[in-house]
Amino acid sequence: MILTVTPNAALDLTYQVPALQPGATHRVAAVAERPGGKGVNVARVLHGLGEPTVATGFAGGGTGARIRALLAVEGVREALVPVAGESRRTVVVTDAAGATGFWEPGPAVSPAEWSALRRRYRALLGVARVAVLSGSLPAGAAGYGPLIDDARAYGVPVILDADGDALRDGLRCRPDLVTPNVDELAALLGRPRVDPADGRSMVAALREVRALGAREVVATLGGAGLAVATAAGAWRAFLPAPLAGNASGSGDACAAALAIGLAHRRPWPERLVDAVALSAAAVASPVAGSVPLDRWRALRPLVTVQEL
Amino acid sequence: MILTVTPNAALDLTYQVPALQPGATHRVAAVAERPGGKGVNVARVLHGLGEPTVATGFAGGGTGARIRALLAVEGVREALVPVAGESRRTVVVTDAAGATGFWEPGPAVSPAEWSALRRRYRALLGVARVAVLSGSLPAGAAGYGPLIDDARAYGVPVILDADGDALRDGLRCRPDLVTPNVDELAALLGRPRVDPADGRSMVAALREVRALGAREVVATLGGAGLAVATAAGAWRAFLPAPLAGNASGSGDACAAALAIGLAHRRPWPERLVDAVALSAAAVASPVAGSVPLDRWRALRPLVTVQEL
Repeated sequence: MILTVTPNAALDLTYQVPALQPGATHRVAAVAERPGGKGVNVARVLHGLGEPTVATGFAGGGTGARIRALLAVEGVREALVPVAGESRRTVVVTDAAGATGFWEPGPAVSPAEWSALRRRYRALLGVARVAVLSGSLPAGAAGYGPLIDDARAYGVPVILDADGDALRDGLRCRPDLVTPNVDELAALLGRPRVDPADGRSMVAALREVRALGAREVVATLGGAGLAVATAAGAWRAFLPAPLAGNASGSGDACAAALAIGLAHRRPWPERLVDAVALSAAAVASPVAGSVPLDRWRALRPLVTVQEL
Repeated sequence: MILTVTPNAALDLTYQVPALQPGATHRVAAVAERPGGKGVNVARVLHGLGEPTVATGFAGGGTGARIRALLAVEGVREALVPVAGESRRTVVVTDAAGATGFWEPGPAVSPAEWSALRRRYRALLGVARVAVLSGSLPAGAAGYGPLIDDARAYGVPVILDADGDALRDGLRCRPDLVTPNVDELAALLGRPRVDPADGRSMVAALREVRALGAREVVATLGGAGLAVATAAGAWRAFLPAPLAGNASGSGDACAAALAIGLAHRRPWPERLVDAVALSAAAVASPVAGSVPLDRWRALRPLVTVQEL
């Protein structure tokens, strides 16, 4: 079982409108509602791939109840911990020109609520093969560090997919894998974005992240694929050309593929092929977060892996 | 007790952002959540004025639970009827340039749910002095007509504050008062907007609405105040100058003032003074839907009432 942790789970709302006009009132003809937050999305992808998974994190109030109800409908196992605050919503307004997003901050959690999540998490670690810690932390959270320490105590490898302080602080507790994108990488290292085509600079940046505490680092490069640095070497994997579509679910699909690779101890080049193909398949999917299995299989042979 | 009916109650979310940029993702620093829908807003204003009130209508799912919880916090008595669908949300994004709104359609209701609302409504009519029927109807609703008939059977006067088909159909059952704005009036009569300053055309339009079935008609004219036509005559009431601010709560404040005037059988000129002053006080309030009592009292002597 792969355990995902989403301390700031969300209810994702998508409003389709003919044209977003600032200052106007829009009647939304149809509303798409989906449970979200990075770790919840990773669990959805894993479930879609037939990989046993449990999603934990926090869910509170009417919005939290809705998140749980919709996960039940999708058949995704959840062990979300109740919280007094109201879970956050995200609203994405789509029109012909693109997508405009509004992200609520989410509720603060109390020390007792954080302890309850940690107890739930430890209980689930006993039966987990990998733990994926994902996304932003609510106000009042004690950070990802203790959760990384817990996983080590249980012998469960940890993927940390976060940015900013949550990533920086988490690195001190030596997660097995972190997965920044190029912007997060630049922010973490306090320097300009690395050009994905510049292999030497990319390897140098990834080594620096390893020096900060990560055993292995995957940088997600958007259309340019993935780069990884491990103790054994560094590779980049990419498709002949980026796929057009909705990039929003791509990072979570990538984290799901990497979690499966880690759970099954697959060799890195194989993990990269799976992750690049699954990310690209998610981008090309008409429904964000769905897993187009056929397309994934079709894309795999097209991925090039290059030693850096 | 003044009974308000909101068949499509809502959870109103306000997102404050520095600047709305189509195509961008906005982190919303703070979210204001409020129960809404026209009749719920009328009940809030009545409650703020110390007028006994009960809000009925539909509430469903996690969003419905949140609407009820927030009404309880505000101390507004509600008798919302459970519905299987999820209550709608409205999202208003405000920035320095203004407000941009997104209105979800709300859930369809079943015939059994509509019957349950009607039973609840009838039970409340037994102790109501006025019924206020407000806002859009959900898919599956049987229309405001039967609710107007029920009120007549109980001897309770009815205010209908709706537009489009809900207004048109409701008029056939002869509500005591309807309250269209100038746009709704134009749509109802199928002709261009009447200039609020043109008293003769305004009286002609209002008489036409009376001929369609309304015993009395108040047209809300925005900054130009109110016009009313009754069997006894027609009047316009206005302030020396329109107040700047948030117009969104103004119509509901007006309906609340008119409901109080009807409940207490006050003479029309007095009702108009109260309604114009309360609408204007709501516009000038920093918080939409709040009732600035002091400002209301201060504005009353400034209202001019003119026979048309």
